[in-house]
Amino acid sequence: MAPTTQVSPDTLSELRDIANKLRINSITSTNEAKSGHPTSCSSMAEVMSVLFFHTMRYKVQVPKDPSNDRFILSKGHAAPILYAAWAEAGLFPVSDLNNLRKITSDLEGHPTPRLNFVDVATGSLGQGLSVAAGMAYVGKYIDNAPYRVYCLMGDGESAEGSLWEAMHFASKYNLDNLVAIFDVNRLGQSEATALQHNMDVYRKRLEAFGFNALVVDGHDVEELCKAFHEASETKGRPTAIIAKTFKGKNFPSIEDQDNWHGKPLADKSAATLEHLRNLLKNNGPTQLIPSKPVVEVPAVNISDIKLSSPPAYKLGESIATRLAYGNALQKLAQANSRVIALDGDTKNSTFSDKVLKNTPKQYIECYIAEQNLVGVAIGVACRDRAVTFASTFACFFSRAFDQIRMGAISQTNLNCCGSHAGVSIGEDGPSQMGLEDIALFRSIAGSTVFYPSDAVSAERAVELAANTKGICFIRTSRPNTAVLYENDAVFQVGKARVVRKSDSDKILLIGAGITLYEALAAADELAKSGINARVIDPFTIKPLDSAIIEHAKAAGGKVVTVEDHYPEGGIGEAVSSLLSGLPNVVVKKLAVTEIPRSGPPTVLIEKYGIGASSVLKAAQELLKQ
Amino acid sequence: MAPTTQVSPDTLSELRDIANKLRINSITSTNEAKSGHPTSCSSMAEVMSVLFFHTMRYKVQVPKDPSNDRFILSKGHAAPILYAAWAEAGLFPVSDLNNLRKITSDLEGHPTPRLNFVDVATGSLGQGLSVAAGMAYVGKYIDNAPYRVYCLMGDGESAEGSLWEAMHFASKYNLDNLVAIFDVNRLGQSEATALQHNMDVYRKRLEAFGFNALVVDGHDVEELCKAFHEASETKGRPTAIIAKTFKGKNFPSIEDQDNWHGKPLADKSAATLEHLRNLLKNNGPTQLIPSKPVVEVPAVNISDIKLSSPPAYKLGESIATRLAYGNALQKLAQANSRVIALDGDTKNSTFSDKVLKNTPKQYIECYIAEQNLVGVAIGVACRDRAVTFASTFACFFSRAFDQIRMGAISQTNLNCCGSHAGVSIGEDGPSQMGLEDIALFRSIAGSTVFYPSDAVSAERAVELAANTKGICFIRTSRPNTAVLYENDAVFQVGKARVVRKSDSDKILLIGAGITLYEALAAADELAKSGINARVIDPFTIKPLDSAIIEHAKAAGGKVVTVEDHYPEGGIGEAVSSLLSGLPNVVVKKLAVTEIPRSGPPTVLIEKYGIGASSVLKAAQELLKQ
Repeated sequence: MAPTTQVSPDTLSELRDIANKLRINSITSTNEAKSGHPTSCSSMAEVMSVLFFHTMRYKVQVPKDPSNDRFILSKGHAAPILYAAWAEAGLFPVSDLNNLRKITSDLEGHPTPRLNFVDVATGSLGQGLSVAAGMAYVGKYIDNAPYRVYCLMGDGESAEGSLWEAMHFASKYNLDNLVAIFDVNRLGQSEATALQHNMDVYRKRLEAFGFNALVVDGHDVEELCKAFHEASETKGRPTAIIAKTFKGKNFPSIEDQDNWHGKPLADKSAATLEHLRNLLKNNGPTQLIPSKPVVEVPAVNISDIKLSSPPAYKLGESIATRLAYGNALQKLAQANSRVIALDGDTKNSTFSDKVLKNTPKQYIECYIAEQNLVGVAIGVACRDRAVTFASTFACFFSRAFDQIRMGAISQTNLNCCGSHAGVSIGEDGPSQMGLEDIALFRSIAGSTVFYPSDAVSAERAVELAANTKGICFIRTSRPNTAVLYENDAVFQVGKARVVRKSDSDKILLIGAGITLYEALAAADELAKSGINARVIDPFTIKPLDSAIIEHAKAAGGKVVTVEDHYPEGGIGEAVSSLLSGLPNVVVKKLAVTEIPRSGPPTVLIEKYGIGASSVLKAAQELLKQ
Repeated sequence: MAPTTQVSPDTLSELRDIANKLRINSITSTNEAKSGHPTSCSSMAEVMSVLFFHTMRYKVQVPKDPSNDRFILSKGHAAPILYAAWAEAGLFPVSDLNNLRKITSDLEGHPTPRLNFVDVATGSLGQGLSVAAGMAYVGKYIDNAPYRVYCLMGDGESAEGSLWEAMHFASKYNLDNLVAIFDVNRLGQSEATALQHNMDVYRKRLEAFGFNALVVDGHDVEELCKAFHEASETKGRPTAIIAKTFKGKNFPSIEDQDNWHGKPLADKSAATLEHLRNLLKNNGPTQLIPSKPVVEVPAVNISDIKLSSPPAYKLGESIATRLAYGNALQKLAQANSRVIALDGDTKNSTFSDKVLKNTPKQYIECYIAEQNLVGVAIGVACRDRAVTFASTFACFFSRAFDQIRMGAISQTNLNCCGSHAGVSIGEDGPSQMGLEDIALFRSIAGSTVFYPSDAVSAERAVELAANTKGICFIRTSRPNTAVLYENDAVFQVGKARVVRKSDSDKILLIGAGITLYEALAAADELAKSGINARVIDPFTIKPLDSAIIEHAKAAGGKVVTVEDHYPEGGIGEAVSSLLSGLPNVVVKKLAVTEIPRSGPPTVLIEKYGIGASSVLKAAQELLKQ
């Protein structure tokens, strides 16, 4: 926060100069790159100048120090001015800016955490505020620290619903340490925005969503200084700075003109640069030095997180993996106060409510807004402040696919638990059935996909996920399943469990979750006719245990997969993919191949061809070949 | 619309009775099913009574007549009362309601269009209003007809950002034929909603989003009749009816109590039913008859849609498939006025702007709100009023995965075009690269995935998509690629093109989009050492041409796939999956296996192992085996 309301004329003059220097560097770097968005940078130059050289408190040389104020550039296409601001602040030489977008440089087209001053990747619009809200939640309620969180958005992106989810969340939790800045420059990519410069509509919307909403001239550094100061003095609710700006501000013949989105200035640059240089009052080095944080916030320990007590089930006991998820999460939360559970009003179905009941400060209710649920979870995890578990029905993570995708680019450590997988949920019908969720999470770069089949492995999946980098997904099931494993059984990422095996196996059956039990029932039937089947529980679908290759060979190269999921991107394709380099192996894949309907779980499992009788039939057909 | 503002006491009395009859049937049907959401039905009973027996104009026996007013139950878990309303109106016997959720009945747990009175499946919250807005847009601007569109939402679901995208859209386009009804019953699934009964916040938010916002007592049929009448008289903006209600209204000891979400009344039902029956003034058959539409709206012809002129390119000419998409879409739109293009402020990148320029009435700008973009496109397509093409960057369809998933359950005919596939976009970096989009669209039940490699096939893909049922996805590329096919070449769904072939092929190379050209370059290199490679362009990734099996055999069982996409759920897995039933076939899969960075397209293609040299190396390795 600004130390006083009055800002000296010298400071104001320098802030104006810095804004124009940032413009200059945005032009030159995008010219050098021959692509980029200089006009989108220019509209926010004064905001950046004021934030980085007056308002924010941070250690320039330690950009991710937990004590620092945070800044998220939600309009990631304005990356050049973010880079220019950090260079101007002294983190790296200004001359580096001319490496923008080069393959050899981390100064990418849109910001990613390959850069040490970027918390999360941006560039898919409308996602920054959820992450910022997650950071602000941690600051206010978990770190109890005075650092503040600033998120800068474009006006075009304010059409994204995810922003309004974040707004609803931020006001619900009184995040007065959060400032949402809207760069209302009137112009989108392909035409003017729907609201153009109708500042009053923005103000009304933001006020209605519980913000202290301040409309300012976004090119007036003094107004900006005052507004940010007011934000810092405003208690009990977040502040929105709605900055009226012009795209390409101070670029003569370009300012406020359409058709200049995402284009370097090229032959217009020389005149524009000259104009900008003429605006500088002082062409020398920047004198202003960013303020340091007033309170040191310590690092926290989120490594080697363990269940407070091991699984305690009886072999054969019937218990849903979703319930085991809740049990495990409660135990993790008990063991480490930085384990945080988040849910979207499904906590009594996913059983994340066990955390709320046991360690209420470690639970964040995100209501029915899955994009924001995931975004907040990413924000809470930022700077290694916490380990987060976001849960909802598996199918509803499809709502947050883009946030999860960007999470991977952000190098996030995020754990998602999707309950209610597949047709085995029964009567609620197809809209509630996760049938694409394995495909979704497998497609995420660097992800780990757990699909535990019993309560013991479910608890261990949760524990492993807490200690695994990247995006983890835990798929849980609604129905009860029998406990298969001893409480001290050891589980590892990428290690399948052989559930049934002999020295004379003729076929390999692979199932997970409820279908593992169908595979076992089929194996029982095969055994009756003297045929031994090997049965494997993959435990993680990604990475898939490469030992399955040897098991497939040992079982004569005949493999049946069965899954409560659509065929594409699921277990069958993962197995086919793993085995596709081998000759003499055939894989028969059973999966749900049409849109299911409502009905009893056991009826649906048979009807959609993933029950024991279907597995038996498929095995018998393969054995005939 | 209601014919007059004054409603007779007899009518009001009967509307009250109907509401309680609907409650009774919601209780009995969910009791019979042993699952379901009777309390969520009860809060909206008066709204349903007034809408179905007073306000809406429709032909009960022809529920999807284009002349009818439309009703979307966005809070799909209240399905029992929707079914009860149609039964009460006379569409089917009330006794059928007791088949709720049975495997033999179309009265599923959440509504799907297996029922002739359901336009779109609901149950994933927050999606109804976008669809309703699409329908209203068609009514106002394309059909120019007086039918009205009603969408009923829960208060819990108002946390979903997609609703606010729809609101922004509805007010931007002055959809005064749209009425958004909020059933504010205060209670979510697992706890009270964030706003509870804070009606004033709802009113302010809706007013700020451009609605005529009316707060009413949702259990007062007279107030509801008046509000719906006012809505019908309100011009230039949509109306929101914000109904203050109680969950489990008129269920003694259950009304307004927590922990009653999604539970049949079981042992509480007898007393509750008795209470409700005692509330009825007239226990006889319902006398009120729904009003019929005043204007007949004709069916339209959206079959056999053809390009107004065939592709007109020169072999070898360099042109991006995204540009060919624009060309084709413009020609389809010219040929049929019911072909509608929609985009999310990327029209000058996807080239859907060609429709805007040529036939502006057939273009709908949806701004940066991809969930609503897809939802509106589904709504526009409803009741076969139009053929819709929604376009944005391929990666941003991840934002709308849930809408697309629900679209499939809705039996929607929707065409999506995702441009800017893969690393070949270059310097913009990973956030803008579609690398999971094939996995996404393949996982959708009944989908068709086109991946044209040149301009001719791209145009034909667009034409085929227009005439293909279900969800179609067309993946286009940013860079220019050479025209490979004659303008009169015939393309079909599920038919691959053999681009290179001999009688002595030793290996099969499969690429699509930019990687097809890499495969061809590798084949050139192989030819130099006397090895013939067969090269296939799959054209559709789903369905994948089963003829590839014979080609794989003809090429000695050695297959290399190469794709500008992550491995999971992509072309390689599709091919592996197709070939997994064959012994003696091996597939080597090249794909992007890490998060890419910014750089020149050609550099990235080589760096991430999907360039010609990688294909050559993979082929050589396979040939050695």
